[in-house]
Amino acid sequence: MVITVTILGSGGTIPTLTRNLPATAIQCDGKLFLFDCGEGTQTQIVRAKLSIGKLEGIFISHLHGDHVMGLPGLLMTLSQVPREKPLILCGPKGLREFIECNRRFLGFQHSFDLDVIETTGGTVFDDDELGIDCSPADHSCFTLAYGLRENERPGRFLTEEAKRLGVQPGPLFGQLQAGESVMLDDGREVHSDDVLGPPRRGRKIVYATDTRPCDEVALLAHHADVLVHDGMFDDDLRDQAKLKKHSTVVQAARLAKRAQVKRLILTHVSNRYLDDRPLLLQARSVFPNTKMARDLMEIDVPMYK
Amino acid sequence: MVITVTILGSGGTIPTLTRNLPATAIQCDGKLFLFDCGEGTQTQIVRAKLSIGKLEGIFISHLHGDHVMGLPGLLMTLSQVPREKPLILCGPKGLREFIECNRRFLGFQHSFDLDVIETTGGTVFDDDELGIDCSPADHSCFTLAYGLRENERPGRFLTEEAKRLGVQPGPLFGQLQAGESVMLDDGREVHSDDVLGPPRRGRKIVYATDTRPCDEVALLAHHADVLVHDGMFDDDLRDQAKLKKHSTVVQAARLAKRAQVKRLILTHVSNRYLDDRPLLLQARSVFPNTKMARDLMEIDVPMYK
Repeated sequence: MVITVTILGSGGTIPTLTRNLPATAIQCDGKLFLFDCGEGTQTQIVRAKLSIGKLEGIFISHLHGDHVMGLPGLLMTLSQVPREKPLILCGPKGLREFIECNRRFLGFQHSFDLDVIETTGGTVFDDDELGIDCSPADHSCFTLAYGLRENERPGRFLTEEAKRLGVQPGPLFGQLQAGESVMLDDGREVHSDDVLGPPRRGRKIVYATDTRPCDEVALLAHHADVLVHDGMFDDDLRDQAKLKKHSTVVQAARLAKRAQVKRLILTHVSNRYLDDRPLLLQARSVFPNTKMARDLMEIDVPMYK
Repeated sequence: MVITVTILGSGGTIPTLTRNLPATAIQCDGKLFLFDCGEGTQTQIVRAKLSIGKLEGIFISHLHGDHVMGLPGLLMTLSQVPREKPLILCGPKGLREFIECNRRFLGFQHSFDLDVIETTGGTVFDDDELGIDCSPADHSCFTLAYGLRENERPGRFLTEEAKRLGVQPGPLFGQLQAGESVMLDDGREVHSDDVLGPPRRGRKIVYATDTRPCDEVALLAHHADVLVHDGMFDDDLRDQAKLKKHSTVVQAARLAKRAQVKRLILTHVSNRYLDDRPLLLQARSVFPNTKMARDLMEIDVPMYK
């Protein structure tokens, strides 16, 4: 499975010409997941050449305008394209009423089922391949951080071992790879476990903004391949970050280090920074594998082999 | 006074990479008026290098999502910049509750007074120089068309006539130009009217979308310098236009001709048209002085001399 994270909006509070309001997409083969939906997200989705028809769900961190004002428009646009499956819409309490009140005033209907989940944490999506978990973050209103995790994949097929056990290449290989046991002509049984390596680790991507650095996010992000985290302020504005319940880039980098993530992407960058390089340098002094989020940036997340 | 119309969003229903959702700004020297506020308008305002600090009022045609979903975000951003004067927010009934419900869910406050006007027509703005009138248009929900009119300006000062009447150049000229009467040394009185030409006509710009062609709009647009009108469909889609309560470009052109406007700008162009030239040709066959609206297009409206 190809997993790609696309930053649709790397700004926060006020959009600029280079940083749209918060939204991050994760594409997992044919499934698309959207995290937050600031004003202008539907246009950013088109710009990023992502297909809204593939949307499985929209996961909202919190009910501040810069994170949700693109939602009614996106739902209206989704109603203009054919869609059979329901759409998951997940977020904190109040999300359903927010949608309902806009729907009432603007008189729009969806042409598909909306599966609204209001939650304070836990697993909010699960299928054969993927799951999405969420935990409370630490912001000025109730906020959720989300983790998308790929399930463990079966181990590699050990061709030489299978041959050694007397299995002939052909249909029996396929059965063993699919986890079944097979009976050989001489009556011996070979089990899938005998010819598969150890299960391969699944990938994990965590989206956490807006938030102070906090234990819940560190836990959710433990060993994540990619952590997209609030990095609104440079470290000189620690007081401001504390007051507004955001993170400085250094605070986010410390959390990334502690959670032993592979890569850190700093987002929700304040519109005061025309040049974000000083922020990047500050963060990298603590956690070298850091990037500043940019609109339409794509991050490929390689499979474990 | 310099009057410039800027198209911020020339599309409708669904935004595209070249056509944002409906919004048109009219700048009259230091005053800015916004008509409709689709999603993404605040970014288009920045892109057009207009200053939100100059906003006098926002005038909403109707409560369909594509015309208003940029409003909560713009109000939030306006609260981040210093502002002393109140902001007029005008539109059909329901506008106040739409704002209130979003404000309640998203917990934002304005830092300035919002002067909400819910109306079915009439004069909604008036100062020394300008007025804004509105009339019902003809759409699938109650919709207003707006006309911004410049007041008549005093006639030109007839210098030679003033001299002929014995007025010496100097302070008396200024008094006469300001509309006052003056007493000459020989006791004769000279009135302002004696030395001013006929009053100079004010300019008029009309914004009418979404709408079928209708009498109310034709009346409001009578002799307008610029008419920005719904031109969603080409003329082959007359039935579609009728059903959806929009106009074809030919219907809009006929209305422009009938209302004897100077220039027609066709807007709310459907996202089905990648190339809008055929629409332009159709409209120009009826009303030659037509343009298709484009995002960030600026239309200067020259003064009457």
